[in-house]
Amino acid sequence: MSVTHPSGFLAAGLAAGFKASGRPDLALLVPAGGPAAAAGLFTRNAFAAPPVHLTRAHLLSGRAAGLVVNSGQANAGTGPGGMDDARAMAAETAAILGCAPEDVAVCSTGVIGAPVAMDAFRSAIPRVAAAVSAEGGPDFATAILTTDSRPKQAVAESDGYRIGGCAKGAGMIAPDLATLLVFLTTDAEASPELLRRVLREHAAPVWNAVSVDGCSSTNDTVLLLSSGASGRSVPDEGPEAAAFGEAVAEVCEDLARQVLLDAEGATRAIVVHVDGAGTTDQAAAVARSVSGSLLVKTAVFGSDPNPGRILQAIGSSGASVDPGAVSATVGGVTLVAGGAVVPFDREAAVAALGGREVVFRIGLGDGPGTATAFGCDLGYDYVRINAEYTT
Amino acid sequence: MSVTHPSGFLAAGLAAGFKASGRPDLALLVPAGGPAAAAGLFTRNAFAAPPVHLTRAHLLSGRAAGLVVNSGQANAGTGPGGMDDARAMAAETAAILGCAPEDVAVCSTGVIGAPVAMDAFRSAIPRVAAAVSAEGGPDFATAILTTDSRPKQAVAESDGYRIGGCAKGAGMIAPDLATLLVFLTTDAEASPELLRRVLREHAAPVWNAVSVDGCSSTNDTVLLLSSGASGRSVPDEGPEAAAFGEAVAEVCEDLARQVLLDAEGATRAIVVHVDGAGTTDQAAAVARSVSGSLLVKTAVFGSDPNPGRILQAIGSSGASVDPGAVSATVGGVTLVAGGAVVPFDREAAVAALGGREVVFRIGLGDGPGTATAFGCDLGYDYVRINAEYTT
Repeated sequence: MSVTHPSGFLAAGLAAGFKASGRPDLALLVPAGGPAAAAGLFTRNAFAAPPVHLTRAHLLSGRAAGLVVNSGQANAGTGPGGMDDARAMAAETAAILGCAPEDVAVCSTGVIGAPVAMDAFRSAIPRVAAAVSAEGGPDFATAILTTDSRPKQAVAESDGYRIGGCAKGAGMIAPDLATLLVFLTTDAEASPELLRRVLREHAAPVWNAVSVDGCSSTNDTVLLLSSGASGRSVPDEGPEAAAFGEAVAEVCEDLARQVLLDAEGATRAIVVHVDGAGTTDQAAAVARSVSGSLLVKTAVFGSDPNPGRILQAIGSSGASVDPGAVSATVGGVTLVAGGAVVPFDREAAVAALGGREVVFRIGLGDGPGTATAFGCDLGYDYVRINAEYTT
Repeated sequence: MSVTHPSGFLAAGLAAGFKASGRPDLALLVPAGGPAAAAGLFTRNAFAAPPVHLTRAHLLSGRAAGLVVNSGQANAGTGPGGMDDARAMAAETAAILGCAPEDVAVCSTGVIGAPVAMDAFRSAIPRVAAAVSAEGGPDFATAILTTDSRPKQAVAESDGYRIGGCAKGAGMIAPDLATLLVFLTTDAEASPELLRRVLREHAAPVWNAVSVDGCSSTNDTVLLLSSGASGRSVPDEGPEAAAFGEAVAEVCEDLARQVLLDAEGATRAIVVHVDGAGTTDQAAAVARSVSGSLLVKTAVFGSDPNPGRILQAIGSSGASVDPGAVSATVGGVTLVAGGAVVPFDREAAVAALGGREVVFRIGLGDGPGTATAFGCDLGYDYVRINAEYTT
């Protein structure tokens, strides 16, 4: 049900011809009752795409009357014409929806350096606008995909309101906004200020803890829109606001797991919990260093319990580490204690590495800092997919 | 001729039984005329191995009368017993060479968490000491290898003296001391202070610019020993000191290329030159981000000219970048100009990507900062080797 699970949203997705494969590649989301409150998180890549710059500017108003997404071309690295195209996408969409161009959010994903085929866009935008419906979430979630093998959708219910979301992104996923595109909707009534804070405090920590290949994209975007159609209002502060944030985080974590398990060439998700660090930042640095290590990722792919690689990744994280205080387990099997590799039950460790979700727990001592990072293994298919992407 | 190319050094390498394969795994280097002036660079990994700590302490004196290296076990993550073993290796070697244990440098490389088989060491150290000769450099260079497919040796001549060196390291190679082990010798007469400065100013920039997989090892060590046997003295300052430094850098660059071309699963070396950055550090950050990018590495493996991945890596380097001023070429073929991907000669670009050394040139504008980084492609064999390493 994705982004149309909460009431007050209409969506559609169809094939506009951006992809040579003929698969769906144009998606539209429209709040049924006029502009929704809206907020976003955006990539910090210096080559942020024109649609990223445009949408960031448009959302300064705190509202959106439409969200249009094309897949196939990223409209990044496209020179001055790229911004003209992004503006034209907003203007054409606005003309059909009957809103101001500034109330349209625009996202693009696909090959960097490729401009959006604007003729195809102009010819398809009336069709996708005519197709929007309250059951259109799955079509929307499908049309935003690129190298993903399947759509990622998640929903949550809370105290009288719903949250829905979808995501795409199978590579170029890294800390500083992990996935390429994440769209979240709710029928709770919430202010743009609350939406911004919830994204910053509850969504960003999830997406910044996810890494497939350490490559932060030019187009990474997370948007959160509130229709208010449930009639349930969430105040900006207090326990209800916190519960709302936790429900958003729940949807993000669900989507993040789906993204990782569908990462290019991945067969397993990797979860690294770290505790006992001096600070949260230090715990996060260690968690990311382990989950992002090529040597750990290939060892997981090969179901090879290799405690040395975990030590190596902990030690090179840049965090302040007391080696003698370090412990590490995988799936509950102790591999490292007191900073030294210990004899371990090899069969149990291999079994733990064979699951769909491989969980490492790293102890750094008795400090208060804890963090979790999410990754995936790296196998032959990552190489195959990425060595042959544009050819 | 490796480390015995300069006069005044004896070396040997043989099989002591550390490796199950029965290949050579114990190496010894001895200055023929008594202690040599010596200096070192060491890993900054928090899990630096006991031999790293011991050798760093021993070289504070600025001299070494022997260098012993075992391959097969890294003696890292081995708990308190690891330091006992490293000290015992120094003591046993010193007893045979007739020097103080503090004058012996000890290095270990191989599986992390595995202790050195000390019985094998004790039984083999008299044999390797009896085998040292002025022709032993190649045997030494062979006995330090682990997953390398071949030894890496380089030599240089300068104004009346020679420099020789060997290296090992096929994975776990990253900035902050790229290769696992590098041993450099010279028959110039040089003070420990000059050796330290030359390592810091001429060797470290080379090895810190090299990355295979971004994984900084627990055992990375670069040592430089001076026998003085040429009779040619190099003063601590001035043009002769600079020429000496440049000759050491030349040997290091030669070795670095050999290491990259023999990196686990690599088929091509990647060289990234950056100019026009605001500062040297910013240029280096961009050069490393491009040369270390998984997406660039897999694109090179697949001979796939993919300008978007270059933009992505430049943009996410953390350096301050003016996108509109960015240009990029591969093998002289322009892929990006004015920050935008431009139409390019695809056939020429594919040909450039097919060479043994793939050269990218990135322009960031008109700033004074320049830097070069070295990497290699990432293919199926990297996955195969690293998914099956300890099993």
